[in-house]
Amino acid sequence: MQLLSQTLAAIQPIDRVAMAATQREIDYCLKPPGSLGKLESIARQIAGITGQVHNAIKRKAIVVMMADNGVYVEGVAMYPQDVTSIGADFVTSGRMGVNFLARAAQADIFAVDIGIQVDVDLPKVIKRKIRHGAANFLKEPAMSREEAIRAIEVGIEVTNDAIDQGYDLIGTGEIGIGNTTTSAAVLYAFTGAPLDRVVGRGAGLTDEALERKKNVIKQAMQLHRPDPDDPIDVLAKVGGLDIAGLTGTFLACAARRVPAVTDGLISNVAALTAMRLSPEAREYMIPSHLSSEPGAKLLREITGLEPMLDMDMRLGEGTGCALMFPIIEASLRMIEEMGTFAILGKSRDEIGDHIMAYRGKFPR
Amino acid sequence: MQLLSQTLAAIQPIDRVAMAATQREIDYCLKPPGSLGKLESIARQIAGITGQVHNAIKRKAIVVMMADNGVYVEGVAMYPQDVTSIGADFVTSGRMGVNFLARAAQADIFAVDIGIQVDVDLPKVIKRKIRHGAANFLKEPAMSREEAIRAIEVGIEVTNDAIDQGYDLIGTGEIGIGNTTTSAAVLYAFTGAPLDRVVGRGAGLTDEALERKKNVIKQAMQLHRPDPDDPIDVLAKVGGLDIAGLTGTFLACAARRVPAVTDGLISNVAALTAMRLSPEAREYMIPSHLSSEPGAKLLREITGLEPMLDMDMRLGEGTGCALMFPIIEASLRMIEEMGTFAILGKSRDEIGDHIMAYRGKFPR
Repeated sequence: MQLLSQTLAAIQPIDRVAMAATQREIDYCLKPPGSLGKLESIARQIAGITGQVHNAIKRKAIVVMMADNGVYVEGVAMYPQDVTSIGADFVTSGRMGVNFLARAAQADIFAVDIGIQVDVDLPKVIKRKIRHGAANFLKEPAMSREEAIRAIEVGIEVTNDAIDQGYDLIGTGEIGIGNTTTSAAVLYAFTGAPLDRVVGRGAGLTDEALERKKNVIKQAMQLHRPDPDDPIDVLAKVGGLDIAGLTGTFLACAARRVPAVTDGLISNVAALTAMRLSPEAREYMIPSHLSSEPGAKLLREITGLEPMLDMDMRLGEGTGCALMFPIIEASLRMIEEMGTFAILGKSRDEIGDHIMAYRGKFPR
Repeated sequence: MQLLSQTLAAIQPIDRVAMAATQREIDYCLKPPGSLGKLESIARQIAGITGQVHNAIKRKAIVVMMADNGVYVEGVAMYPQDVTSIGADFVTSGRMGVNFLARAAQADIFAVDIGIQVDVDLPKVIKRKIRHGAANFLKEPAMSREEAIRAIEVGIEVTNDAIDQGYDLIGTGEIGIGNTTTSAAVLYAFTGAPLDRVVGRGAGLTDEALERKKNVIKQAMQLHRPDPDDPIDVLAKVGGLDIAGLTGTFLACAARRVPAVTDGLISNVAALTAMRLSPEAREYMIPSHLSSEPGAKLLREITGLEPMLDMDMRLGEGTGCALMFPIIEASLRMIEEMGTFAILGKSRDEIGDHIMAYRGKFPR
């Protein structure tokens, strides 16, 4: 509890002065103002995060939280539960979807057993198991309030370790059969939005199983009545250990002033949970792709994090983060490498006036 | 004319057998079928392009066509015309927007003077000037029919040279003051779509200049009446040398079976022109980003090329291609590096049955 409190207390707004100074450099580059769009926003945001005008990423990591979910037994998942532990094996031996994408992006993976059902003895897995899978929330709370807090703190600790090792761009992934159900339940608990906007087919449910998934979530909500104003209560009653762990990752990144990249449904639900614990945490998050799970669009509206990749992906694991890393890194080269309006005999201040004339023309 | 005819004659449909074989490998990877979305489509498409199941990109290039446009004098552009030749200087000395992004993606740039207004004496510029800028199409055709064909052939030759040098992934960019006006005119000539859907602010026009741009296009259309069924006629009357050159690049890539990446408005207008000359050329094109120019959405509908990046960019130069290259390269690692359903004791044929059960569940 102390680590969570300390972490929340350490989160500050990003540095608007550094952002403005970076924008001034961006606007001096030889191009129409704003014409590099989101690349400019990312560079500006990272300046705000680090407090420095000039930035470069040194080391990239994806934190992959692995956990099982007791609600699996209700028939809400497509694959057998042991796919989670197979995932633990594959992700540490480099064979999951996120692995080939992380290698392409030259990113490392921190694979954390935060609650796999079975005991996993793999040397490269970070062993931080809170319990052997969350409970079936159709029968009882997914976990105790204390376990939810400890799971968030595991996320904070693992992420702090990564940051201590010099990782300065963090992605968020997960592996866990049943975790689109827990994510949908958390999203539903926070928003009360229509279930059609919240619940999707996950890895590929039939129509019948999709209805079952919706009913399970509805019944769990009636049973537990999680308090939407108490994110820990929501996580404990209908969440999962992976969601809680990633919530901690987002909070740690915000506290340590390191950009955190969101992935698909589960990661974005964790991002939302982190924002509910600390609204300022949002400023440290960079979105990646729009998952094809229906909840992703609802999350985009609520969090205001606008995905930049539209790849029709729905795998999770941090795959979208890995695709986003090179784009983020590229954005930081802009002010270091581009020629400027000096070639036209203009000073930075003259360009400032030029920019003012632009305002309003590109309202977006 | 002979080179264009030969190139068009050489364009064949992509290899559906290689695509199916690659899809079979993709579906054997341990993940829900289709869950890597567009990454799967790209890998499948490249298999169809090369005719090989296993692919890797060896060298990447962006062809940047540079040309001026006489219609500039009508007040349809934001920047002074000499920005085109400054662009030629900057792009060959590594200081344009596309340069820092190409470096990030480890791509090389082929910068072609296909029609800059002034004489440019820069060693790294590929000197293939057809004429000193296109004519003002409000007064006379932008170029002769012969010049349009020669410009397409310059694009074919430069691209063939790149392919001969081992470049096997080609992006398409341009630098040329006034080229959103010529692109909009070509798009309008082909489609007759409402001008609001075709014409945008380019680098940042005022409301008044935007109206002027629309009127210029409308008047040019009445003056020249380009034949929408004759792409060469459209290019010659209201196009630009850069658009014609990039049309050649797309055709050469299709003829030589090399993937070509589209960029923003101008590049996509060239892609459309190439498709009008050879519908099969479309299968060799990979989209990148959705430009914030309004014509980009219309082009998406017409060409069916669905951009995967939504970066709010409107700079051109091939910037979107450079951002797309790492994603394309990453997609090819999937079947080389992922673990398979063999871990669950399944054969490829059993997975084939499993896939069939999925059909219809994810209609997109």
